[in-house]
Amino acid sequence: MKVHVATKSLAAALASLERVVPSRSSNPGLTFVHVTLTEDRLTLSGTNMELDLEAQLTADAAGEGAWALPGHVLGQVVRALPADSVDLEFGDTEVRISSGSFDTKLQLADASQVPPLSFPNEYEGALPAAVLARLLTSVRYAAAANDYQAVFRGIRLEMHDGHTRAVGSDGFRLAYYHTPETSGLDADVILPARAVDELGRLLDSGEARISLGNGQMSIACPGYRMNMKLMEGTFPDYNRVIPRDFRVEMVAPAQALVEAVGRVSLLSDASANNRVDLLIEEGNLTITAEGAYGGAQETLPVRQSGPDEQISLAYNARYILDAVKPLDGDVAIRFSGTQTPSVVQGEAETGYMAMIGPLRTVAD
Amino acid sequence: MKVHVATKSLAAALASLERVVPSRSSNPGLTFVHVTLTEDRLTLSGTNMELDLEAQLTADAAGEGAWALPGHVLGQVVRALPADSVDLEFGDTEVRISSGSFDTKLQLADASQVPPLSFPNEYEGALPAAVLARLLTSVRYAAAANDYQAVFRGIRLEMHDGHTRAVGSDGFRLAYYHTPETSGLDADVILPARAVDELGRLLDSGEARISLGNGQMSIACPGYRMNMKLMEGTFPDYNRVIPRDFRVEMVAPAQALVEAVGRVSLLSDASANNRVDLLIEEGNLTITAEGAYGGAQETLPVRQSGPDEQISLAYNARYILDAVKPLDGDVAIRFSGTQTPSVVQGEAETGYMAMIGPLRTVAD
Repeated sequence: MKVHVATKSLAAALASLERVVPSRSSNPGLTFVHVTLTEDRLTLSGTNMELDLEAQLTADAAGEGAWALPGHVLGQVVRALPADSVDLEFGDTEVRISSGSFDTKLQLADASQVPPLSFPNEYEGALPAAVLARLLTSVRYAAAANDYQAVFRGIRLEMHDGHTRAVGSDGFRLAYYHTPETSGLDADVILPARAVDELGRLLDSGEARISLGNGQMSIACPGYRMNMKLMEGTFPDYNRVIPRDFRVEMVAPAQALVEAVGRVSLLSDASANNRVDLLIEEGNLTITAEGAYGGAQETLPVRQSGPDEQISLAYNARYILDAVKPLDGDVAIRFSGTQTPSVVQGEAETGYMAMIGPLRTVAD
Repeated sequence: MKVHVATKSLAAALASLERVVPSRSSNPGLTFVHVTLTEDRLTLSGTNMELDLEAQLTADAAGEGAWALPGHVLGQVVRALPADSVDLEFGDTEVRISSGSFDTKLQLADASQVPPLSFPNEYEGALPAAVLARLLTSVRYAAAANDYQAVFRGIRLEMHDGHTRAVGSDGFRLAYYHTPETSGLDADVILPARAVDELGRLLDSGEARISLGNGQMSIACPGYRMNMKLMEGTFPDYNRVIPRDFRVEMVAPAQALVEAVGRVSLLSDASANNRVDLLIEEGNLTITAEGAYGGAQETLPVRQSGPDEQISLAYNARYILDAVKPLDGDVAIRFSGTQTPSVVQGEAETGYMAMIGPLRTVAD
């Protein structure tokens, strides 16, 4: 059983698998990748029990078969290969990998130790891969990083007739991305954030086909298939808390705002939530911070509107930066009050919405 | 007291100082940088007690004075500044830093807490900065990283009439770089490896002036002055152990050799010194390794000479890679025997020499 394949494609497939398959595990079978050869296709697959991934490569093959190999070792070897293509020749106990003047023999692992993986053949729904990527990556930052209510460590994906929406929240802030694109499915699911990260890396062009069942969501996109375990639990009814009335609204270039808040926050006090103060007044946003080393101030001209003449609030700088960074062009921030959430939206890309709460200050 | 300076130059100077000045210390004075203003020059200096560094900037100044500021905070602020130039205005308790729309006030630190630094005004010796950089950076890798005999954590610099030589060794391997350039000094000193790393980064073009005294070596190069504490101890007489008779010699392209050894070593056994085996025979170098996952082999054509028809030896792959990497073009490796050191030299750049010992194998 012999197969000839492009080094670069094989290296890319293995790099994806190495992010899923652990390099060490108390269950050694998890560290292996399954290698399957059929006619003109080489497939590599692996799992970390939360996420199953399969990468498909077109290959010039003679024979059929299935084997297991240590994933990270194989990845290291393939990345170092000297020539543009590589020959894999599978024997009974080892695979010979030849590329240019380099020759290596890797011992085959016991394939029976690898958890069996199955990917659906039919997918009921679909979205453009780029749309699904934008949905998930725009809101990913708002999910909780650490131990917290389990659902907050996931990304909620709402798929309904006429729209699709991704939502991330850690309980203190929330972001959603809403699109009229329809997947053809009708379901609300919560995806583990780490699995969303991997999916975001793999989604590129073409179509992402989607299937739900057995407590998991399966996605097929060009070159890859993936199963991710769905998270259980109830996501809070966030629509209820999105403010509808605003006292002051401002529009500013997103990038300039991120840079200014970033600079001023260098002087903020890390032990006091990296507090920065915002004052919007007479068409100017003034950002200030005070900390152990001194203070900083920067003023940006903004387009101001709303019933009130001015507003002054305090925020964790990180929350503003995270909420504005996914946006290009102009960003609109709408302030409902000093103790109620503010809403961040793109002026052009209105599908994105983030909600951040001001810090309570002594003045409140 | 006000000074106008280019943001980029100030950021570069602070980046150098931040690598020396600690960000935290039980002695807070060490975390400060001294800022001194005279006519048309701004100087910044700091120390970690092993290494003193001063950076000089041309500046558009009004007034004179000396202050202290927290080094890492100042560096962060300056790197984030929005405009190409920055104004520093020193008051009694704070410095105002303005650049474009950004304004910050940093509290001045207590300058009396900063250890006083002095740099020589006269330098007795000199070398071209690029030559001193090449000397030190070529042999740096061979110094011991961890606790070992203290002198092995330093780089020996031999400065004599008619030649200058840098030597690094960890007791298991050795590298020297020898040049006929003369510094004008006559001394053997041992420089701390970490200080050598910093000096290597600062040396660029122009002249490196050198002065010795008070147990330290001082270097002045364009834009910077530096004092480094010399290490005490006796460096072993390495000349005695450099072999003079060789059984087999080979010449190969350095880069191809590094790549091939790197690839093969991926399959070597990390618990057995990353052993790779070299066989030089009939104008070919065959590199092999065996480890827990299998084995690898690669053959390179080489120019072979020497009295013996072939030689077969084992090495720690890391030692070969480190010894060959400083070289461009062709590398010559001369093998004196399976239990005595081998010598690595550049074919073009003959000033560089490395000595590495083969691994003892069961066959020995």
